Amino acid sequence: MKIAVLGTGTVGQAIAARLSGLGHDVTLGTRDPQATLARTEPDGMGNPPLSAWAAEHGEVRLATFSDATAGAELVVNATSGSGALPALEQAGADNLAGKVLIDISNPLDFSKGFPPTLFVKDTDSLGEQIQRAFPGARVVKTLNTLNANLMVNPKELGADSSVFVSGDDAAAKTTVIELLQSFGHTDVIDLGDISTARGTEMLLPVWLRLMGALGTSAFNFKIVR
Amino acid sequence: MKIAVLGTGTVGQAIAARLSGLGHDVTLGTRDPQATLARTEPDGMGNPPLSAWAAEHGEVRLATFSDATAGAELVVNATSGSGALPALEQAGADNLAGKVLIDISNPLDFSKGFPPTLFVKDTDSLGEQIQRAFPGARVVKTLNTLNANLMVNPKELGADSSVFVSGDDAAAKTTVIELLQSFGHTDVIDLGDISTARGTEMLLPVWLRLMGALGTSAFNFKIVR
Repeated sequence: MKIAVLGTGTVGQAIAARLSGLGHDVTLGTRDPQATLARTEPDGMGNPPLSAWAAEHGEVRLATFSDATAGAELVVNATSGSGALPALEQAGADNLAGKVLIDISNPLDFSKGFPPTLFVKDTDSLGEQIQRAFPGARVVKTLNTLNANLMVNPKELGADSSVFVSGDDAAAKTTVIELLQSFGHTDVIDLGDISTARGTEMLLPVWLRLMGALGTSAFNFKIVR
Repeated sequence: MKIAVLGTGTVGQAIAARLSGLGHDVTLGTRDPQATLARTEPDGMGNPPLSAWAAEHGEVRLATFSDATAGAELVVNATSGSGALPALEQAGADNLAGKVLIDISNPLDFSKGFPPTLFVKDTDSLGEQIQRAFPGARVVKTLNTLNANLMVNPKELGADSSVFVSGDDAAAKTTVIELLQSFGHTDVIDLGDISTARGTEMLLPVWLRLMGALGTSAFNFKIVR
C-alpha cells in the first residue's frame, strides 16, 4: 500500500521503517524536507538527526506534508500533539479526503514542565478535533498508548498486550486492525466511535507515571478479561 | 485490624465483606444508620437495599461516619466521588488524624449523562483534594481502577492483573500493599506520591468505554513489562 507517514520524530521513523519492511511504499512527510535533512544536531529529545536515519532507510522517500499525502492511499499522523492540526492543514483537506487517517498523536502540553498535562481532554479529544477539522478523512485513533518501538514490535514484550482503535468509519477500522495485526498486535480492541479517543488520550498521565515508577517505557497495557 | 469502611454502596459492601472474611473487625460508616437500614427499595443503580446485605453480614456493624472512623485504626473511603469530601467531613479530621485512609473514590460527574466526565483531573485529583482537606490523614489512593468484585477477588479473572497505589506516606503504602496482597493482588505498582492519583483517576474514561466495548465490567489492566 502507498502510505504517507507525517512527522519525522521517533514515532514517524519507527512506523515508516516497519511499514517499509513489510513491503509498503512509504513516504515520510515533513514541513520542509531540505531543512529536515540539513539538520546535523540531535533534536530536543536527544534523538539523532533524520539524515542519519534516512541514510539507513533509502527506500523511504522524504516529501512535503502535501506531496506525501497526495500520493498516498493511507496516511499516518505521527506528529506531536500540538503539531498535528498544523501538519494536517499543510497536508491538505483535499489530499486527505476519502483516505484512512491513522492518528497516533497525543495532546501533551509541556509548557508547564514534566509531567505534561493534556491540552484537550474529557469532553473532547485531539482525535475528534482532527476528525472535525477534516470531515472527509476517515480518522482512526490508535497506537497512542505505547512507545514507538512497541507500537510496531509488540512481541518484544514477550507477553500478549492490548491496543485500541477509535473511529467513526467501520471499514477504516478494519483496514487499520489488519495493519496492526501485521505489526504483531494480537489483541486489538475496538472501543467505538472517535469520541472514545478521549479514553485512550487520557491514558497518557498514568502511562507517564508508570514510566517513572518502572524506570522504562518498555511496557504496555493488557486488558485482562 | 479495626477498619471503618465509609459508604454502603456496592464498593463499600464488597470491601467490608472481604475484610470481615479475612478476620478484620469492620464497621460500615454511613450518614444516618437508621435511615440507611430503613430503606427497602433498590438504590438508583438497582442494587438491593443495605438491610438485605446487613442481614447476611451480621458481623459488620453499621455506624455513623464519625463513630465508625473514631473506633478504627484504618479507614476506607468507598463513597461516590461527589460524596467523598462531605462524608470525610462528617467522619471528622480529628478522627482521621494519623490513620491510613484508603481512597477508592472516582471524581465522576454524571450530571450530563453517560459516559460521565471527571469533575477534577489532569492538574489535580480527588485523592489530592482529600489529602489537602485532611492533612493529618495518611491518604493512599488505590483500587479505583477495577470493579467492586475484582477489587477484593482479583483471582476471579484467571490471569494476573495490576493495581496501583499513590500516596505521600511510604509506611501507609506498605500497610495498604499488604492488605491488597491479602485480597489476592499479586502485582501492586507504587506510582509515587498522591499526585499520581491524577493518572489512575484519568483511567476511568477508558475503563468506561472498555466496559461498553467488552459488554462487561469484569476486566482489569495488567501492565505488561
